[in-house]
Amino acid sequence: MLTLYSFGPGANSLKPMLALYEKQFEFTPRFLNPAVFEHHEDWFKKINPRGQVPALDHDGKIVTESTVICEYLEDAFPDAPIKLRPKDPYMIAQMRIWTKWVDEYFCWCVSTIGWERAIGPMARSVPDDEFEEKMKHIPIPEQVTKWRNARKGFPKEVLEEEMRKVRVSIARLEARLSESPWLAGPDYTLADICNFAIANGMQFGFKEVVNEQDTPHLMDWIRRINERPACKEMFAKAKRETLAPRPASAAS
Amino acid sequence: MLTLYSFGPGANSLKPMLALYEKQFEFTPRFLNPAVFEHHEDWFKKINPRGQVPALDHDGKIVTESTVICEYLEDAFPDAPIKLRPKDPYMIAQMRIWTKWVDEYFCWCVSTIGWERAIGPMARSVPDDEFEEKMKHIPIPEQVTKWRNARKGFPKEVLEEEMRKVRVSIARLEARLSESPWLAGPDYTLADICNFAIANGMQFGFKEVVNEQDTPHLMDWIRRINERPACKEMFAKAKRETLAPRPASAAS
Repeated sequence: MLTLYSFGPGANSLKPMLALYEKQFEFTPRFLNPAVFEHHEDWFKKINPRGQVPALDHDGKIVTESTVICEYLEDAFPDAPIKLRPKDPYMIAQMRIWTKWVDEYFCWCVSTIGWERAIGPMARSVPDDEFEEKMKHIPIPEQVTKWRNARKGFPKEVLEEEMRKVRVSIARLEARLSESPWLAGPDYTLADICNFAIANGMQFGFKEVVNEQDTPHLMDWIRRINERPACKEMFAKAKRETLAPRPASAAS
Repeated sequence: MLTLYSFGPGANSLKPMLALYEKQFEFTPRFLNPAVFEHHEDWFKKINPRGQVPALDHDGKIVTESTVICEYLEDAFPDAPIKLRPKDPYMIAQMRIWTKWVDEYFCWCVSTIGWERAIGPMARSVPDDEFEEKMKHIPIPEQVTKWRNARKGFPKEVLEEEMRKVRVSIARLEARLSESPWLAGPDYTLADICNFAIANGMQFGFKEVVNEQDTPHLMDWIRRINERPACKEMFAKAKRETLAPRPASAAS
């Protein structure tokens, strides 16, 4: 049995979720609400002591880290007909260069801007004492720092530097997609899923850098992934499931 | 045929080099000299356009990124008798959580302090015009920034923050090694090799945090890896090979 704990189909949570839909695996989605710091509650820290989503429960074994979960699905179900990792060792390496790059570079710069825009106002709406109480439950010190910075507002020079990195990242993706249909070569792989997790939505939120004129190949790639049946099903189902009333025991 | 381009058995270069020795593979080592910016010379950028070591040439195919190369050796030689990646999918995931963590967190904080101490004085010894000329050949903008920061000296608050992260990292390794002989569980894996690449030597350069009293399990793990025949052979051979006169065509 597979249960995926996530914030829903966006950012790091999207990676294993889209992989599960692409592979047509049955799984139970468990959506956590970041606005009420649900991932830092004790019940979830028993599942992932680092208090981070996504986390996969496979028959009681917990696998964490979005990219690691994606490769785990390939390793744990070697006979599954739909593969998201190439067979050829050299092509696997090309895929991993892209999944590593999104985790080490691309996701961080986009994340800081996202925190400034979305988490900042949310964090400022929480009263001081309640905010301090929430901070005590966050197990990773860097996450505490990030919450505090978002609440204060990130310094202008940090935001400028992160926007520079966003531009470097987008230029890299556009260059690659102008020469190859998918990031790791001729096939759609985890390289695409993991980068799409961060890039999707930038055509709205970062339209000064991601648009038809400047990045036509990236726009086309975002569209092609959105049009995949697995992707459509994921977004449609997640919308229904997050709108459905939650049982009272959901967070117990 | 395997050729490994590297700076020798330290930091990221050590990861695939130790893996090659552990697996008892024949390979040609090609040592580049960072002090003369050899990795930014055109001949090497034809091999890796990002101008970074290590890089592996396997029968003409180039694989880059140290951790990716390590897993490539497992994928490309599935029948090799010595394995550095577990068989069980859940254990592979545990291994990858550690190889990912060293690449995203541990290596960066140690690297900044290392650059301040070793690269800074070296960069300052290069005359201005020669330094600027060298900067023009570095393909990654963040690397240019790092060279400039090292030459100027990193700001005190950056160094303090990086030292905080070094302490967090060392505490995490010590905690894990106090409960398990190897990082990913009962077996020696790429998790150990990739973290050893950064941790080895810290018992000298960072002895205020890595020492017998505060981190006995980490010290023991460093010692156990250093005593492995593959590790001894690697250090002994690298010493001989870097001391040997280089053919005039070595950098052509």
